[in-house]
Amino acid sequence: MRIPLRLALLPPADAIAPYLAEIDRNRWYSNQGPLLRSLEARMAERFGVETEAVTITANATAGLTAVLRAFDRQEGRACVMPALTFTASPLAARAAGMRPAFADVDPKTLMLTPESVATLIESLGGPSEIGAVMPVSLYGAPLDVAAWEAFHTRTGIPVVIDAAWCFDHIEICDLPCVISFHATKAFGAGEGGMVISRNPTLGDRVLRGATTFGLSAQRQSIIAGSNGKMSEYGAAVGHAALDIWPQRRPAILQVARAYADALADVPGVHIANDVDGSWAPGTILVRFDEAKSDYISSVMTQRGIETRHWWGNLCTDHPAHADSTVGDLTVSRDVVHRLINLPFFDDLETDEINEVVSLIRELSGPKYASSEINPGATN
Amino acid sequence: MRIPLRLALLPPADAIAPYLAEIDRNRWYSNQGPLLRSLEARMAERFGVETEAVTITANATAGLTAVLRAFDRQEGRACVMPALTFTASPLAARAAGMRPAFADVDPKTLMLTPESVATLIESLGGPSEIGAVMPVSLYGAPLDVAAWEAFHTRTGIPVVIDAAWCFDHIEICDLPCVISFHATKAFGAGEGGMVISRNPTLGDRVLRGATTFGLSAQRQSIIAGSNGKMSEYGAAVGHAALDIWPQRRPAILQVARAYADALADVPGVHIANDVDGSWAPGTILVRFDEAKSDYISSVMTQRGIETRHWWGNLCTDHPAHADSTVGDLTVSRDVVHRLINLPFFDDLETDEINEVVSLIRELSGPKYASSEINPGATN
Repeated sequence: MRIPLRLALLPPADAIAPYLAEIDRNRWYSNQGPLLRSLEARMAERFGVETEAVTITANATAGLTAVLRAFDRQEGRACVMPALTFTASPLAARAAGMRPAFADVDPKTLMLTPESVATLIESLGGPSEIGAVMPVSLYGAPLDVAAWEAFHTRTGIPVVIDAAWCFDHIEICDLPCVISFHATKAFGAGEGGMVISRNPTLGDRVLRGATTFGLSAQRQSIIAGSNGKMSEYGAAVGHAALDIWPQRRPAILQVARAYADALADVPGVHIANDVDGSWAPGTILVRFDEAKSDYISSVMTQRGIETRHWWGNLCTDHPAHADSTVGDLTVSRDVVHRLINLPFFDDLETDEINEVVSLIRELSGPKYASSEINPGATN
Repeated sequence: MRIPLRLALLPPADAIAPYLAEIDRNRWYSNQGPLLRSLEARMAERFGVETEAVTITANATAGLTAVLRAFDRQEGRACVMPALTFTASPLAARAAGMRPAFADVDPKTLMLTPESVATLIESLGGPSEIGAVMPVSLYGAPLDVAAWEAFHTRTGIPVVIDAAWCFDHIEICDLPCVISFHATKAFGAGEGGMVISRNPTLGDRVLRGATTFGLSAQRQSIIAGSNGKMSEYGAAVGHAALDIWPQRRPAILQVARAYADALADVPGVHIANDVDGSWAPGTILVRFDEAKSDYISSVMTQRGIETRHWWGNLCTDHPAHADSTVGDLTVSRDVVHRLINLPFFDDLETDEINEVVSLIRELSGPKYASSEINPGATN
């Protein structure tokens, strides 16, 4: 593609080299090594929390799975989440011994709310029958954490926030949030994830244990954890990524701002994940009033511009989740065919952004309104 | 400790550096990148199999989980395995939606055999009710793969071999074997694992899918996989580890041979994992006729020598596995208190080996026979 969807930019070899030299000196390569601990300490300082409130994991899916396991709920309970999310969210629930149950999203934010999950929770037998609720940030969009804290206090249901696409601007709260360090995310470190909360609610011991086979200090699996460890090499990349972040961030903000400006007056098109140039996202998601995403993607591909709705269809459409509990998904089913992630990366040029947005303007116009397109085509 | 149990030795920074430079040039950091693919090709060549028969994973637990998911068995079925294994084996089964069921081991090899699982399989309703069987190599000891291939053909039950501690000498067969690249293993790369078989039985697509959220080419989760991906950085360490292996191997063989020679005439003590100097292990496991491992470990600790039965108690003793199906475990329960892993690493000196073995000789003598020791003490 002439303009790819994503061209990740991770720390160069010379930024990683000093940390590799440290690994050689330590002769410690995984299992809560010194580089992992110091990366957790740096992250804690950056986000203003205690070091014990940060647990770095092999990837975000491992982080979500570890949190759900650490909740220590009865096997087979429902984990309520949106169907408008990446398949990793329900897969984490399954790996933790829970069953996914899909609720609808708010029509404005396209994210779960305490109101949007209420009916499904009641139909499953009420709060005492629920394993957990997993609100998902829409590609990094800030979510109403206070509302979820209140929900947790009121219902007693454990809540974990899938904040895979968040890093720069996340509002740290009392609930565990799971951030991804995957290469495609804003803060990329190859593979990696982080569980963070304002207070070490779950306890360092339990959560860390969940990423280390659930082992207690007596080397007994006290919960059914797994191997969710990040090696010292992974931590080395994480350190280097944090070192170069102050240089990367302004470039990302500039791309975000250019998109926000260029899209502001395009009729029928809205930025769905709140990208406005004030925080550094990993992607930009647009929502069309009328036009269908598969049609737009195919035309843009012909012009050498790669676009995609990254999460694809709703999770309910994946064969692996066919046995899940499904609530009313009116909003999700309607909107999923009108979402597209546009090319987004640090060194995307202003000319390229303008070319993308010009084409979007053309394709979202009345000439391509929904009546001409088969609404079922993306399934 | 003056003589530690394990002092891993992974490739130095300058052996990794050329691969990091390649990552910079590729600007591809995970998701089946070129370094991962070329590492799989090198492993395939080394083991004499097709490239499609090798899948490298984030860690061995992720590899076991992916294979079990790729078997695509009904949720909740039993995965039959020894209780004499690391907790990762039953945790992989749980993460794949199976229930661990523990069978006894053969009194000579201390590993599962088709005979030792027969009664448990019948009591669970016969082969059609079983999800999978997972024989485990005892700390790298070669196992009778032909017997397991015949078992699989005869019963139709899927078999995956937990070969976490194998690398140097593993007999590749038609069944998927999962090898660990964890830092503590003979072939260490920080965190990592590899699924390998003589034929790509499970299909590259399915197995790779299981480590990549079970996604098909159409980005649909067709099985309930997870994120078991190794990043390009992990692959870089793997390449460097493979580069230095020809230098490391003779040193490891020398330590193995020195132990085998020194232990040969110690009465009441046997090498349990077949270490004889012909292959490069990651550890040496000894079995005592009489003496108890917790007693020996504590005395050795006082003398500055770190020992441990690495897997600890039987898996049945872990709270997380308390709900598992448990067969007759007479052999396992008897032997687990008489196993010890001795210090073992590349640069262990002959003097140190002799010191360890002298102490073993002293402690395993009649003076310390079992009658003096509380047999329940290690629980």
